[in-house]
Amino acid sequence: MRDFSADHRWMSLNTATVRKQGDLAEIIEACARHGIRAIDPWREQVAAVGLDRAVRMVRDAGLELSGYCRGGMFVADAAHRMQARDDNRRAVDEAKALGAPCIVLVAGGLPQYSRAGSAASKDIAAARAQVEDGLAELLVYAREVNLPLAIEPLHPAYAADRACVNTTKQALDICDALDPKRTGLLGVALDVYHIWWDPEVLPQIARAGKDRLLAFHVCDWLVPTKDILNDRGMMGDGVIDIKSIRAAVEAQGFAGYSEIEIFSNDWWEKPVDEVLRTCIERHRSVV
Amino acid sequence: MRDFSADHRWMSLNTATVRKQGDLAEIIEACARHGIRAIDPWREQVAAVGLDRAVRMVRDAGLELSGYCRGGMFVADAAHRMQARDDNRRAVDEAKALGAPCIVLVAGGLPQYSRAGSAASKDIAAARAQVEDGLAELLVYAREVNLPLAIEPLHPAYAADRACVNTTKQALDICDALDPKRTGLLGVALDVYHIWWDPEVLPQIARAGKDRLLAFHVCDWLVPTKDILNDRGMMGDGVIDIKSIRAAVEAQGFAGYSEIEIFSNDWWEKPVDEVLRTCIERHRSVV
Repeated sequence: MRDFSADHRWMSLNTATVRKQGDLAEIIEACARHGIRAIDPWREQVAAVGLDRAVRMVRDAGLELSGYCRGGMFVADAAHRMQARDDNRRAVDEAKALGAPCIVLVAGGLPQYSRAGSAASKDIAAARAQVEDGLAELLVYAREVNLPLAIEPLHPAYAADRACVNTTKQALDICDALDPKRTGLLGVALDVYHIWWDPEVLPQIARAGKDRLLAFHVCDWLVPTKDILNDRGMMGDGVIDIKSIRAAVEAQGFAGYSEIEIFSNDWWEKPVDEVLRTCIERHRSVV
Repeated sequence: MRDFSADHRWMSLNTATVRKQGDLAEIIEACARHGIRAIDPWREQVAAVGLDRAVRMVRDAGLELSGYCRGGMFVADAAHRMQARDDNRRAVDEAKALGAPCIVLVAGGLPQYSRAGSAASKDIAAARAQVEDGLAELLVYAREVNLPLAIEPLHPAYAADRACVNTTKQALDICDALDPKRTGLLGVALDVYHIWWDPEVLPQIARAGKDRLLAFHVCDWLVPTKDILNDRGMMGDGVIDIKSIRAAVEAQGFAGYSEIEIFSNDWWEKPVDEVLRTCIERHRSVV
């Protein structure tokens, strides 16, 4: 396992972590002040400054990307399925333009939450089938432009409204079905927040192997969790044994960034420099 | 699948559903008013009126029990392990005295949350090993008094603070390890709230079979969920396809009560008769 204690060479910042503190230009400037070498920006942050300007800012700052957030939301009723397909192709194009190593895909939950305006359903099995169909279709497009797709299994607390892919096993089953030859174009983005509870997580990480491990995200699970979406913890403030999960990922040969992604009403209230200083300190001590 | 539309013969009330509206005596009176024939009382409600009086009240009202809530919380540091063991034996004795068909067991999460005062740990694998050890020990006691133990897997959102047994598969793996002969003394209590998201839930229900299906609980998952513990929904108000899960359970031969257990700050504010009327109506229409 790599030693992170001496520097933050392998730390990436998911820009949602400080999305309330400034726009993408301000976040990139803050990263420069703190010697942060990689980011994972969100589509709406890129759209707000314009894609061309975002591409220039990333290049001029000498930043790498650890991913691009996010595509997916494959579940929709018939009237919204083309919209989902086209939207995902645009997201792939943006990721490519920005030089991202992969695009992070959140599957979508039930259609009424995944694509606004879709007819309501309680059929989660049907939603899961649609995700697999949508991924199969997007994989054809991703192959043309050579941009890897990273399925992010989300915690079961989000099964209804965000993602019906809820375990590493489930994500890898999809990978094996759609990409049996392990081309490197389909894999998983694993966030400790979503997977730490899973009794099968360590054997599933071993099953994934280096080919399928496209991104690794960190934050922490707080007790109590006051808000089901926006009360994620700074690493070290919760109950996740982060090092043991990173050790498992790196044992497979993963050598990429540890990306910090914290959705938190508390941390969004703090000055950006305080947030980034804390991220760096925790990256060195508890990640 | 049984037809529930004509009456509420197979509805049971978990008394936590109206725990803010009155004590156990008042809840039992309310059940009588509404023709509810079974309850699952909580230990603290029984303790508040006294065990002997609770036994008499249940008998005098002609009530059946669908379970007794709850034992477990097996995870503790060394200093608190005997306390956990003795506490669980008392719970089994109480269940037996009340005529419960089983005791519902919530495994416990990390030791600092499972048994107050225990030293803190982030080792969920160790917690899981302790749960299995604690269950093995309690099973010996349960066998002596012939009282079945029902492991309730809890939603992964509770993995840290309430239960590190989070899937039906995990609970059944423990059952198979400790009770390979399927004596009927060890099984699962399945609550749709905790299991609905699980992509493996239907095959795991089939794996459980009638021998292991000791209790079936219903409520609903609301979107958004405002409170991670106390915002469960009335059946029909959320996203769970309850009938499909009941069909799977009954296909295995389960013929017991559908027990309504709703922890809800909203429903605790309403008059008990309104809550019970709604429970009965929804039991007939959406369960």
